[in-house]
Amino acid sequence: MDKERGLRLSNRACLMPASPIRRLVPYAEQAKAKGIKVYHLNIGQPDIPTPEEIMTGYRGVDIKVLEYGHSAGLKSYIQTLVDYYHQAGIKVNEEDILVTTGGSEAISFALKAVADPGDEIIIPEPFYTNYLGFAVMSGVKIVPITTKADNGFALPSKEEFVRLITPRTRAIMFSNPGNPTGVVYSAAEMELLRELALEFNLYLISDEVYREFVYDEDARPISVLNLKGVEDRAVMVDSISKRYSACGARIGCVVSRNRDFMAVMLRFGQARLCPPTVDQLAAQRAALIPPAYFESVRAEYRERRDVLCAELEKIPGVKFLKPRGAFYMIVRLPVANAEEFAIFLLKDFNLDGETVMLAPANGFYATPGLGRDEVRIAYVLKSADLVRSAKIVRMGLETFNR
Amino acid sequence: MDKERGLRLSNRACLMPASPIRRLVPYAEQAKAKGIKVYHLNIGQPDIPTPEEIMTGYRGVDIKVLEYGHSAGLKSYIQTLVDYYHQAGIKVNEEDILVTTGGSEAISFALKAVADPGDEIIIPEPFYTNYLGFAVMSGVKIVPITTKADNGFALPSKEEFVRLITPRTRAIMFSNPGNPTGVVYSAAEMELLRELALEFNLYLISDEVYREFVYDEDARPISVLNLKGVEDRAVMVDSISKRYSACGARIGCVVSRNRDFMAVMLRFGQARLCPPTVDQLAAQRAALIPPAYFESVRAEYRERRDVLCAELEKIPGVKFLKPRGAFYMIVRLPVANAEEFAIFLLKDFNLDGETVMLAPANGFYATPGLGRDEVRIAYVLKSADLVRSAKIVRMGLETFNR
Repeated sequence: MDKERGLRLSNRACLMPASPIRRLVPYAEQAKAKGIKVYHLNIGQPDIPTPEEIMTGYRGVDIKVLEYGHSAGLKSYIQTLVDYYHQAGIKVNEEDILVTTGGSEAISFALKAVADPGDEIIIPEPFYTNYLGFAVMSGVKIVPITTKADNGFALPSKEEFVRLITPRTRAIMFSNPGNPTGVVYSAAEMELLRELALEFNLYLISDEVYREFVYDEDARPISVLNLKGVEDRAVMVDSISKRYSACGARIGCVVSRNRDFMAVMLRFGQARLCPPTVDQLAAQRAALIPPAYFESVRAEYRERRDVLCAELEKIPGVKFLKPRGAFYMIVRLPVANAEEFAIFLLKDFNLDGETVMLAPANGFYATPGLGRDEVRIAYVLKSADLVRSAKIVRMGLETFNR
Repeated sequence: MDKERGLRLSNRACLMPASPIRRLVPYAEQAKAKGIKVYHLNIGQPDIPTPEEIMTGYRGVDIKVLEYGHSAGLKSYIQTLVDYYHQAGIKVNEEDILVTTGGSEAISFALKAVADPGDEIIIPEPFYTNYLGFAVMSGVKIVPITTKADNGFALPSKEEFVRLITPRTRAIMFSNPGNPTGVVYSAAEMELLRELALEFNLYLISDEVYREFVYDEDARPISVLNLKGVEDRAVMVDSISKRYSACGARIGCVVSRNRDFMAVMLRFGQARLCPPTVDQLAAQRAALIPPAYFESVRAEYRERRDVLCAELEKIPGVKFLKPRGAFYMIVRLPVANAEEFAIFLLKDFNLDGETVMLAPANGFYATPGLGRDEVRIAYVLKSADLVRSAKIVRMGLETFNR
């Protein structure tokens, strides 16, 4: 940066990581400029159409003055959320909810409310990379606890958690179902988190945006809000981005039964005035979506997962565990450096004019060196494209390793 | 808060101020519950209809999958902004702009990019109260430099600024035209800021959301981006909320010619993925709004200002300077405690079933004790309502001071 005492950016600005998912974008753009078709397995952008109910909400907007809404969100939308959560088996009231601009803002608000600069948050790695971004922006330190593909990315033992807890530890944060692992925590794992929260006075910040996306009979995500005895320290962050394939709406929420915590959410919310109004009105119409919707989306992703896993199993040297939720999986490749391979696919390879964009998994780990031979794959494309993508990866590996 | 080592919220959460503008809301709600009509002079929510061009943008949305947009904003919308700024005499390029979720996010991003926890930002007070909220959330310290109604809220001398500058000072932030003062900085004042920025390596963060709202021939706001020689340290934050009476759209932007700074904006932007998509598409259609639009809005606010000032002049003991821009003014009342008076108006007073909600001005000062006998008035209501409101204030003062 600039010279001492000169004009300079903040340390957090300099530390702020570039998105590892988007880091390879220039290579993808170059490939596309050469006329190569790129299958995007790198980003969790579903291709499922946004329900017409929601899009009709935008088209039907009847507002003369597009005023500021309530800082906590529109009352009518919050009521829709209360109903939705009740149906999902989570009993919350209006005052437990603050509508946010995407799940992103919910995470950012929650982090700042529980942790000061220099405080620590424990997160099982690999984790959703933007957790790191929000932590850096807030001056909060992420302490990773490593989970491994070999045992299904299960949570480590209590002793391993305890070893990482310091007087500055404020919370354990996790996504469940998990991005990028596809893990769904068991009742025993949730009980471990509950115990830790009680014993060490920690908040549990649970990112549950993939609630509906589970594909096995016995994979039932347990909401942090349904753990007993931790009502004061359970914080849930959520979003409609994945639920209704409405990523561009930027509507999320933060939910907690802790009154003091929610009062802070409101004060944070007042500073940024309100979440977008018309998008809330559109999201509100999700109440009209028939219950069968999630069934069909789930069936679609289940098939994609099964197809992709079947294809990946055919590739020599590729290792993975079948994911149980979300729409991601961590895949170990027979290469020393998965990032080099991902760049190779975009820069130096194509199969009949087509290639694949992968997300190197090292960006999902906070511990240096981990995930170097892994990629995250988002199975958000239709099955035929996934079959084709797997073939491209297979042929790419053959060429790369020759 | 909770006991030492118990579960507790962060210090910044505890320090986070409640919005002084919204602090009196419960009293207003009680008044309304009693059937009393409340004129809202407390909040900068224009009653001007949002241009049909923009609302039609929402209604015409034709999207199958509401995907994530680019983290910097939609290319097509950024091009609209480039054109708009050119017409406003500000020559910027696409790469100088990042679209944000409201001006709020632009301020929040800018603060974090130039200042670390414990660093200082100098802001002329009284100032837009949410600056304080964003500073607290980011751990940044606001150092106020007091400006006074007696000399039109002019910037203090260079010496007074220099006295406040420490090794931790990173920027001077201000709004121009000013909220809550209505001040428009002169060429000499902008030159002073330029000099300070160069001499002490400070960023200038200029909030220009009221650019169009100036009512006197000689009041021409100078954009920070048009100051010479500070291209590397000039940061402008902006929003369509006031410009097009579209507060609920949450579309703003941050603009700078400093490449490193904009690279940080993009990394911050990637963490929160993207600003809302449909709202950008709607805002984009502002390009279709005829230039006469601003003329008519300006004429409307000019009349409101003139009417309100004429009415306030009739009230014994009330002091103010005619504002030259934005749609706010600071008014000194003949009371010891303006907050008590504002509560009195809502709680214990009405004129034929009507009363007025004022914003106590102490919340706009960071220096304790300042502004105790002042209120901020937003002249965002139609002239007849302003006349009526002034009468209510006059009669209220008579009763209150009896």
